[in-house]
Amino acid sequence: MHIELKRGSSTKLYIQIALTLADRIRSGLIEPGTRLPSVRKMTADLGVSLVTVSKAYAELEAIQLITCSQGKGCYVRGAQEMEQTEGMDKNQQAERNHDNNTPWNWQMALVDYLPRAQLWRHFDASPQVQYELHMSAIQPELLPTTEIINSAYRLSSDHPERMAAYGSFQGDRELRQTFAGHFAERGLQVVPERMLITSGTQQGIDLVARTFVGPGDVVYMEAPTYTGAIDVFTSRGAKIITVPMDGEGMRIDLLTRLCDTYPPKLIYTIPTYHNPTGVTMSARRRAQLLNLAQSYHCLILEDDPFADLYFRDSPPASIKSMDATGHVVYIKSFSKVLSPGCRVACAIAEGSVLTRLVAAKSTADLGSPLLTQKALQSFIQHQYSSYIVRLREELYARLQAASDVLEEYRVPGMYWVLPEGGLNLWLQLPDGLDMRELHRQSLAAGVSFLPGSACYVGETDTASLRICFTVTNLKGLCEGLRVLCGVIQKVMPRQGGTTADRLPLI
Amino acid sequence: MHIELKRGSSTKLYIQIALTLADRIRSGLIEPGTRLPSVRKMTADLGVSLVTVSKAYAELEAIQLITCSQGKGCYVRGAQEMEQTEGMDKNQQAERNHDNNTPWNWQMALVDYLPRAQLWRHFDASPQVQYELHMSAIQPELLPTTEIINSAYRLSSDHPERMAAYGSFQGDRELRQTFAGHFAERGLQVVPERMLITSGTQQGIDLVARTFVGPGDVVYMEAPTYTGAIDVFTSRGAKIITVPMDGEGMRIDLLTRLCDTYPPKLIYTIPTYHNPTGVTMSARRRAQLLNLAQSYHCLILEDDPFADLYFRDSPPASIKSMDATGHVVYIKSFSKVLSPGCRVACAIAEGSVLTRLVAAKSTADLGSPLLTQKALQSFIQHQYSSYIVRLREELYARLQAASDVLEEYRVPGMYWVLPEGGLNLWLQLPDGLDMRELHRQSLAAGVSFLPGSACYVGETDTASLRICFTVTNLKGLCEGLRVLCGVIQKVMPRQGGTTADRLPLI
Repeated sequence: MHIELKRGSSTKLYIQIALTLADRIRSGLIEPGTRLPSVRKMTADLGVSLVTVSKAYAELEAIQLITCSQGKGCYVRGAQEMEQTEGMDKNQQAERNHDNNTPWNWQMALVDYLPRAQLWRHFDASPQVQYELHMSAIQPELLPTTEIINSAYRLSSDHPERMAAYGSFQGDRELRQTFAGHFAERGLQVVPERMLITSGTQQGIDLVARTFVGPGDVVYMEAPTYTGAIDVFTSRGAKIITVPMDGEGMRIDLLTRLCDTYPPKLIYTIPTYHNPTGVTMSARRRAQLLNLAQSYHCLILEDDPFADLYFRDSPPASIKSMDATGHVVYIKSFSKVLSPGCRVACAIAEGSVLTRLVAAKSTADLGSPLLTQKALQSFIQHQYSSYIVRLREELYARLQAASDVLEEYRVPGMYWVLPEGGLNLWLQLPDGLDMRELHRQSLAAGVSFLPGSACYVGETDTASLRICFTVTNLKGLCEGLRVLCGVIQKVMPRQGGTTADRLPLI
Repeated sequence: MHIELKRGSSTKLYIQIALTLADRIRSGLIEPGTRLPSVRKMTADLGVSLVTVSKAYAELEAIQLITCSQGKGCYVRGAQEMEQTEGMDKNQQAERNHDNNTPWNWQMALVDYLPRAQLWRHFDASPQVQYELHMSAIQPELLPTTEIINSAYRLSSDHPERMAAYGSFQGDRELRQTFAGHFAERGLQVVPERMLITSGTQQGIDLVARTFVGPGDVVYMEAPTYTGAIDVFTSRGAKIITVPMDGEGMRIDLLTRLCDTYPPKLIYTIPTYHNPTGVTMSARRRAQLLNLAQSYHCLILEDDPFADLYFRDSPPASIKSMDATGHVVYIKSFSKVLSPGCRVACAIAEGSVLTRLVAAKSTADLGSPLLTQKALQSFIQHQYSSYIVRLREELYARLQAASDVLEEYRVPGMYWVLPEGGLNLWLQLPDGLDMRELHRQSLAAGVSFLPGSACYVGETDTASLRICFTVTNLKGLCEGLRVLCGVIQKVMPRQGGTTADRLPLI
């Protein structure tokens, strides 16, 4: 048996051996009933003295992990012998025993570098959910899927040999050329050489983070913000500082003061129809933010999936369109608006920031699949403009319907601001409302939503939630919201009622 | 202007200001000709005394970075004034000035976490290359691209709504079900729940690394090995230890001895038709390797893109097929064999190793595109078996042709072992041959190859190279190899000749 010993350590060798063995026994790596190597064998294996091993085994026996008897050797005790099993019912016990017996129990001792991702936890499919309002997406029937499939088919069957080759790490040049035209119409002059095609915004954020963000680097984000971005920056060990928002977006005044103390490495923002709040950053604030980045020589990561989805006026120009000095990495997703099944986004950057991102992309996956890139190209070139006009009207109709239902079934203390575009509506609920209970009851009643806590770095237990008003059909949206309002009403803390008096359960 | 000052520092404030400004001027952030803020303005901006700013400016003037004159203020001096320009020709000077003037020059001061990726450097498109033998891939005409496009079209136009939804993080269930049948035929019994679809092998390796490998963790690899895997583990800050190979694959005897001193966190291997050497690990060594992983409680990452491409006998069973304890993460790529344009691979793992990889995938990109997953499903189900038989014959014919040419044009001191499957042929060249010169001349003559040094962690300047015998057509392969042999002949160090006598150029 191998045990790694630190010979120079202040922890005595027999303690090191005992601790390691105890860990392995407790984690199930060494199973109950296993005979430990003899003292003599262990002595030889580890190159230590007989006394050291004997003392280690005595320690393990003292804490009742093993049983030793003269002539028979030392055995790991059974789970039943080790644990107080009182208060544990039969089922729980069976489950525990089952767990201990899985052959990959040893994996529990395998260290990883992954903070538990939040996103993952909130998207478990729940069979009883009839109205799925938790996911920020567009109802499949509204998306031009058939057109995209047809154009992919046309392009790829005309040139099958293209699909048979690895594409460029940076992304298909023709698609980037198409994007150049698309962005130019939106006031963003950019050549294909400055673009990097990524597999959705999520990968774009991840590439920026793995390239430029490391342990202790300061990253600013809006509070609340996109759950998936929190996961990424957390996984890089960043020091995340969140900045409150008001009706004009991120509070740049607060950000500036914070930057004096904690100079930023990167500022992540969703300036337009922000996820989850729906707020749009004013043109003035955008200019201030860019200015700040320039004086601190830090990057802005501008995540812009919704800019085309305005309901009346188009939003202020992107921060990127004002950026003459390469401080902004701009990511435009086409996943949500066109095809979640294709997962295509475009990142724009300059200078060495771009080349470093391309290198990161090559390490991550050698470049995005050509097929999905080709699928979008022709549609964006020829049909996107007319499609998006119809889509906006459709989405706006849903927002108005959602607003009507919410007004009608409004619960006192609940409020919201209607967004001027995008997919998300942020509901503030009365303080003191038990959000966990609301979520549980709402799911049981068939309605899913994203709890506001998922959008905060510290997972503050805020009385807020996000619903997406575009993901179901109009009827489902209205019914779902009615059900949700009913559940909120039910869970509401009543003045002088019983819910407020509950004692905490420890 | 903002300057971050450390008030408690032992460096005086005026020195801090002068140093910061000097940095900004030298890096081009503050351009030549810029007027610095007045002493009074700077005093107010920084909250320091007039004297402090005056002394800082005086310092900058003393080292000739700025010029100050009474009443006019202080200006940053021009590049010509700052530098000794003697010995620099006009072109160089123009280039320098150009560089200094790019608005994103500040980015050079932006720290990143990206070791320079090797892969990236070796795949620059070179217009003069007629015979591209550097890339490990299959000639596009041999791939079933049309069939795949047709089946993607059929599946997706029958169910357009599917393409319009985000898929599962873990990958499309139907595709995983199809893979289960595929693996079962190959002696690997695995349920869909244990699979994770990734965007090619590269992403699979990257996900394993970002989850389980961190700074200082010991990763073992074969030497030589796949360039892209080196990049990934290097980027995680791993301590990479390479293990020599012989005709039976990785030297497990050496590995075992190394593990005593440096316990492994992960062992990366390509056991079948290894990239770049083509060697296959024996069944005995596979069992030993698994045994070793079990006793060290470490992971094996088994990268297996070529197993179906055997020329006569099928290779030994995969290490994964012997793994009852979840020590092996197995990655099977379908990119090379079916469609580089789809970038689909399947990772197999168990227990918490699998769930942690799925969490990492959700952070990396929310799951692979559905379109590319659907594209492969029907082909693998119905046509793969007959396709692969034909493909094997075709590839084997190329290997034989390559062997014939190499025998005919063989240069003394050059040797190789014909692989029993796969795409790669590893050529050993005479020691002392100038590999850089060979590469330069070979590219100039129109033939690309992968220099052996790209496949070593330390980029040892080994006299070896990898060619892919399946990436061009038969004629191109033979012509390319003839040209390459000619260039090798030319660059060969001659006994008593002049090349060996060359003095190093410093």
